[in-house]
Amino acid sequence: MSRLRFNISMSLDGFVAGASQSEQDPLGVGGTQLHEWALGLAAWRERHGKEGGDVNVSNDVVEESLQNLGATVMGRNMFGGTGPWGEDPWDGWWGDDPPFRMPVFVVTHHPREPLVKEGGTTFTFVTDGIESALEQARAAAAGKDVVLSGGANIAQQYLGAGLIDEMLIHLVPVLLGDGARLFDGGVAKVGLECTRAVQAPGVTHLTYRVVGAS
Amino acid sequence: MSRLRFNISMSLDGFVAGASQSEQDPLGVGGTQLHEWALGLAAWRERHGKEGGDVNVSNDVVEESLQNLGATVMGRNMFGGTGPWGEDPWDGWWGDDPPFRMPVFVVTHHPREPLVKEGGTTFTFVTDGIESALEQARAAAAGKDVVLSGGANIAQQYLGAGLIDEMLIHLVPVLLGDGARLFDGGVAKVGLECTRAVQAPGVTHLTYRVVGAS
Repeated sequence: MSRLRFNISMSLDGFVAGASQSEQDPLGVGGTQLHEWALGLAAWRERHGKEGGDVNVSNDVVEESLQNLGATVMGRNMFGGTGPWGEDPWDGWWGDDPPFRMPVFVVTHHPREPLVKEGGTTFTFVTDGIESALEQARAAAAGKDVVLSGGANIAQQYLGAGLIDEMLIHLVPVLLGDGARLFDGGVAKVGLECTRAVQAPGVTHLTYRVVGAS
Repeated sequence: MSRLRFNISMSLDGFVAGASQSEQDPLGVGGTQLHEWALGLAAWRERHGKEGGDVNVSNDVVEESLQNLGATVMGRNMFGGTGPWGEDPWDGWWGDDPPFRMPVFVVTHHPREPLVKEGGTTFTFVTDGIESALEQARAAAAGKDVVLSGGANIAQQYLGAGLIDEMLIHLVPVLLGDGARLFDGGVAKVGLECTRAVQAPGVTHLTYRVVGAS
């Protein structure tokens, strides 16, 4: 059965992006600190078309998190931009050769034709809800798992709907103080079981299995 | 050097107590879930005067967290009650034989004579601030460490003042959705380093060293 896996970096105080996100500062104030643990890793560099890099326990966790994935789901905010696309729509944060290298389904209120990028990444814009996006992603994944990449808002929706099977939270020992909280008030009280905790330089990797509504 | 160590159980969504705390429900809605991992442990039972119990990896973490402690600091809310003490002041949540078995310094705005309880626990009420409470606790600890037991409000004050040396967060895989957040907006951005992550039944024990302001 194709599972929905959710991977995200979160500060110890619960933020997955800093305050004041903008086109110039997509991760918000201090938000880059959430990803510093990953930037030097061989697995990260390889995914972004670069050679070399660190091989430590985080590298194993990242490689494992990329295995058996057939499609990605993300929210509009993570693709980039807000509101109607306009006549000359922006192609988002990810450039001409995005690191996904698989079909990506972007949940949005605003219809748009699919975007085909280099390296196997296609962006399909889904306007009829998170269940539909997951169905389309599962079909595209052809038996492999689907990964939910964020951000906070869509993750809350998928978690609240009981659709996430596994969460891999990269817990980063910083306090951002403000920004986008992953678990904001009103999130559904699903049952969780921590199945693994891996301590690594600058990050703790926590794997949770979602075991149903509590 | 006597260190200030902070031990607390926190939900994955960042709460150290549930909503609507009251004298009848001191941990708030759902708050008891934060402590279920500990209740069956031999180390916990022994501290509360009971025999038997589970001996697992959490037991080791709890025993270690109780070693080399000479005094406890806590906030008024954790002692019990709010506002002026009144003519017949309540003795708080902890009963005649509190589990601390050491001098406890309660930070409060309202002066009160010390309380002597069974088993070595004395409560001293400190009205001139967190630094004074820590100084008094250090003097009482006579070279041993001081433990800060919570709650959220006083922990934020000590953390913000750069006075905490080590945090042991027992991260519990539940989502409370509301309550008292340990890391609420405006907390000081201290530097943290996770030095240990221990996965155990129903809890992940995360040790952080505070390495100074970032």
